Amino acid sequence: MADPRFYSVAEPRSLRDLAAIAGAAIADEAAAGRLIRDVAPLQDAGPDEISFFDGKKAYRDAYLGSRAGACVVDASDREPPSSDMVLLAVDDPHLGYARIARAFYPSLDDSPAVQTEAVDPGARLGPGVEVAPGAVIGPGAEIGAGSRIGANAVIGPGVCIGDGGRIGPLASVRYCLAGDGVRIAAGARIGEDGFGFALGPEGHVKVPQLGRVIIGNGVEIGANTTIDRGSGPDTVIGDGVIIDNLVQIAHNVRVGRNSIIVAQVGISGSTTIGDNVVIGGQAGIAGHLVLGDGVRIAAQSGVMTDIPAGATFGGSPAVPQKDWFRQIAMLRRLTKKNLDDR
Amino acid sequence: MADPRFYSVAEPRSLRDLAAIAGAAIADEAAAGRLIRDVAPLQDAGPDEISFFDGKKAYRDAYLGSRAGACVVDASDREPPSSDMVLLAVDDPHLGYARIARAFYPSLDDSPAVQTEAVDPGARLGPGVEVAPGAVIGPGAEIGAGSRIGANAVIGPGVCIGDGGRIGPLASVRYCLAGDGVRIAAGARIGEDGFGFALGPEGHVKVPQLGRVIIGNGVEIGANTTIDRGSGPDTVIGDGVIIDNLVQIAHNVRVGRNSIIVAQVGISGSTTIGDNVVIGGQAGIAGHLVLGDGVRIAAQSGVMTDIPAGATFGGSPAVPQKDWFRQIAMLRRLTKKNLDDR
Amino acid sequence: MADPRFYSVAEPRSLRDLAAIAGAAIADEAAAGRLIRDVAPLQDAGPDEISFFDGKKAYRDAYLGSRAGACVVDASDREPPSSDMVLLAVDDPHLGYARIARAFYPSLDDSPAVQTEAVDPGARLGPGVEVAPGAVIGPGAEIGAGSRIGANAVIGPGVCIGDGGRIGPLASVRYCLAGDGVRIAAGARIGEDGFGFALGPEGHVKVPQLGRVIIGNGVEIGANTTIDRGSGPDTVIGDGVIIDNLVQIAHNVRVGRNSIIVAQVGISGSTTIGDNVVIGGQAGIAGHLVLGDGVRIAAQSGVMTDIPAGATFGGSPAVPQKDWFRQIAMLRRLTKKNLDDR
Repeated sequence: MADPRFYSVAEPRSLRDLAAIAGAAIADEAAAGRLIRDVAPLQDAGPDEISFFDGKKAYRDAYLGSRAGACVVDASDREPPSSDMVLLAVDDPHLGYARIARAFYPSLDDSPAVQTEAVDPGARLGPGVEVAPGAVIGPGAEIGAGSRIGANAVIGPGVCIGDGGRIGPLASVRYCLAGDGVRIAAGARIGEDGFGFALGPEGHVKVPQLGRVIIGNGVEIGANTTIDRGSGPDTVIGDGVIIDNLVQIAHNVRVGRNSIIVAQVGISGSTTIGDNVVIGGQAGIAGHLVLGDGVRIAAQSGVMTDIPAGATFGGSPAVPQKDWFRQIAMLRRLTKKNLDDR
Repeated sequence: MADPRFYSVAEPRSLRDLAAIAGAAIADEAAAGRLIRDVAPLQDAGPDEISFFDGKKAYRDAYLGSRAGACVVDASDREPPSSDMVLLAVDDPHLGYARIARAFYPSLDDSPAVQTEAVDPGARLGPGVEVAPGAVIGPGAEIGAGSRIGANAVIGPGVCIGDGGRIGPLASVRYCLAGDGVRIAAGARIGEDGFGFALGPEGHVKVPQLGRVIIGNGVEIGANTTIDRGSGPDTVIGDGVIIDNLVQIAHNVRVGRNSIIVAQVGISGSTTIGDNVVIGGQAGIAGHLVLGDGVRIAAQSGVMTDIPAGATFGGSPAVPQKDWFRQIAMLRRLTKKNLDDR
Repeated sequence: MADPRFYSVAEPRSLRDLAAIAGAAIADEAAAGRLIRDVAPLQDAGPDEISFFDGKKAYRDAYLGSRAGACVVDASDREPPSSDMVLLAVDDPHLGYARIARAFYPSLDDSPAVQTEAVDPGARLGPGVEVAPGAVIGPGAEIGAGSRIGANAVIGPGVCIGDGGRIGPLASVRYCLAGDGVRIAAGARIGEDGFGFALGPEGHVKVPQLGRVIIGNGVEIGANTTIDRGSGPDTVIGDGVIIDNLVQIAHNVRVGRNSIIVAQVGISGSTTIGDNVVIGGQAGIAGHLVLGDGVRIAAQSGVMTDIPAGATFGGSPAVPQKDWFRQIAMLRRLTKKNLDDR
């Protein structure tokens, strides 16, 4: 269930309704009247929630173990993993899910801007909190003791920031729960919409982004860096992580403790980064990957594969450091040799 | 003619004056008294406007077909394409044009900040528009029905945003006409100055950027993305385009309908991207190129050439995908072989 | 000594205290009572200041010539360069320095947000300065004649901006001294914390960033670009430099006059760029390098070495242009040959 601090779900709907919305066939017609209250990720969904499974191997275990009361699947998945799950079969499960999620969350938006004062009277500010001129703090937000909110910064409704936080000028923090001692530099964008779309016959169909950004204690986030909120699962930044300027972290990424991410790195959706990882500047990490603890990535690398704990990779596409050095040396030798041949 | 919603042109000037400003020789002295009212791109200029042509092949057709009353050219262009066009010959047409454009637009700037209220009384807000605390909306701006303007966002003078728009907190939208259903995330910068300079003996000479950003219906623009306004032509983002975070789109770029641009991509000036193109994260596209409909570019690629419709390219410099895969495989094999030789 | 416009140093401390804070051994016990007033870079430190030297070759000359009264060094540096300098030996000089710097600058932060009005009464605005709605200007800031401060921009305490400056909407300028005719586009972040950390047994230890950003005359800075302030030395942008959008410039970088830096470039800490350098889009420059005057770097290059004046480099890792072209040609030939072999 999406966090009610941030999202308001519409009324429950019957599986029959949801099947019609998604253009799906219900595997078990007898269940068509069952009421579903919300969408949820496979691993979190309960008996009155619906999830989706697109057949990707990485998510099969979550599918097989899911307690979801219903699941949008590809027509090739005919047997539900348990007798408690009803399948809704469609051509494109992601698109089907997008349609159902939009029925539960029709606005896609923040709740209407009922806020009229810059610091909403419904925000709770701990002792010693300092709010610079022009900062906007939404209803229900909680700011821990001794935190400072910079000039013209924006803290969204329901956001929690722990004690001793430092939010830079003109930063925005939305759909976010942050620990103690967090430092966010000017212009960072925490909690914007992830890049989630399904392709429908009418064009791109936006998938409601219903997760949060969870930030651990002592995290530092650089200027103009962007960290999107999760699509349903959360985006998670572990304790002690240090992120430089202009970094992009996509939805559902998880970064382990004390990892260091240098400027202009991009990490694509649903990738998991271990503890104590170091990622050099301008490197890019593809989506749905796992980088183990202590991995080191050279600057400008392009990582397209999982990387085991402790390994150092470089190059684009990235390979083990030894191989990368060899590629560089070989290129140099070949171009020289070629010259000698002339 | 630059859009008067955004730019105020100075008084008309004679060709004699303009030739003096640009340090140019007038090919046809008899025309020296003719009055010119404005600068304009070759394809848009009329008989009382002046344009420039730097000899680049890509613009020769526009030059030959131009209705401009005068044109700053290289000394090697001696014959005007029509008897209605007067040539002003200089060593560096771009520099000559820059000087003339600065005479017509001496301030380079926004009109003075006469605005004293955050939402200017001269802004027109449609029914149901919600403006969050701290948002600034300039004189003459029009915001369509049901649009929401986020906290501390800035909408410049004269900007038009269609119905149902969502402008995120701390975003800025200037020199821009946007369609319906546009979503712009926090911190995006729409309509800043393009990167336009000519090299004069006194150093860099800024070329006034006199175009706009035209945004189609249903466009999504990610957090902290920057889309510069055109230099004279417009920057154009087609209907249904989806742009991720931290993307750079330079002046005069045109992006076709339903194209998808992933995070941290950079597109250089005057490049045209077709419909339904997909550009992977961190890719860079050089300037003045044409990418056809349905082109796909792999993440981190560096595109230096035009690409025909439907093709998939990868690598830096980018080559057809098949060749790119071969390069990667070859490098792997060579480094292995080299090892075996030892 | 850190600029008192921006930083407030704590009380002087004895070398005995500082050694205890850093976990250091004092080489000369007789000097343990000597009072130290501040931290400072090797080249600027005076007799009552303490600096650090980590053994890096690039800084040995500065160390040997330093007038610092004390210096945190590696245990292998046993002889001070002069009899006026007392050595404090530790395992990790950067960590030891970080601890001492935090004792002198315990808050790490901006001075408390005592500011209650958007334009602080203690700010000095020259004749003809225009301040758009929502802009915040800190105490002690000075804005030169005819400058314009955009809507919702933030000018930090003590910042100086020369005459005729243009600060875009939602830009932030902190810890900065800027010349005349400076143009800073929307969303640029000038003067945020550099990425400075030492690794302690308790995790990352933030090193106070005590320098400034010094911006010359006529500099242009693009939208959402980030320029971190120096760590102790300053970050310096020379006269006439033009910087495009989304560029990252790290602490202590120096950019020479009239250089051009295209969009999405990243320059790592303490690198020096000469005059009239051109750096193509998305290129990355590693830290602690020197690029001579007139150097040209191709787009997407990765520079890992010093580059002599006048040279053109390309590729990742970057090599002289001729070699880079050869690498590209060779790769093309090899993949073709490989095909022919089949």
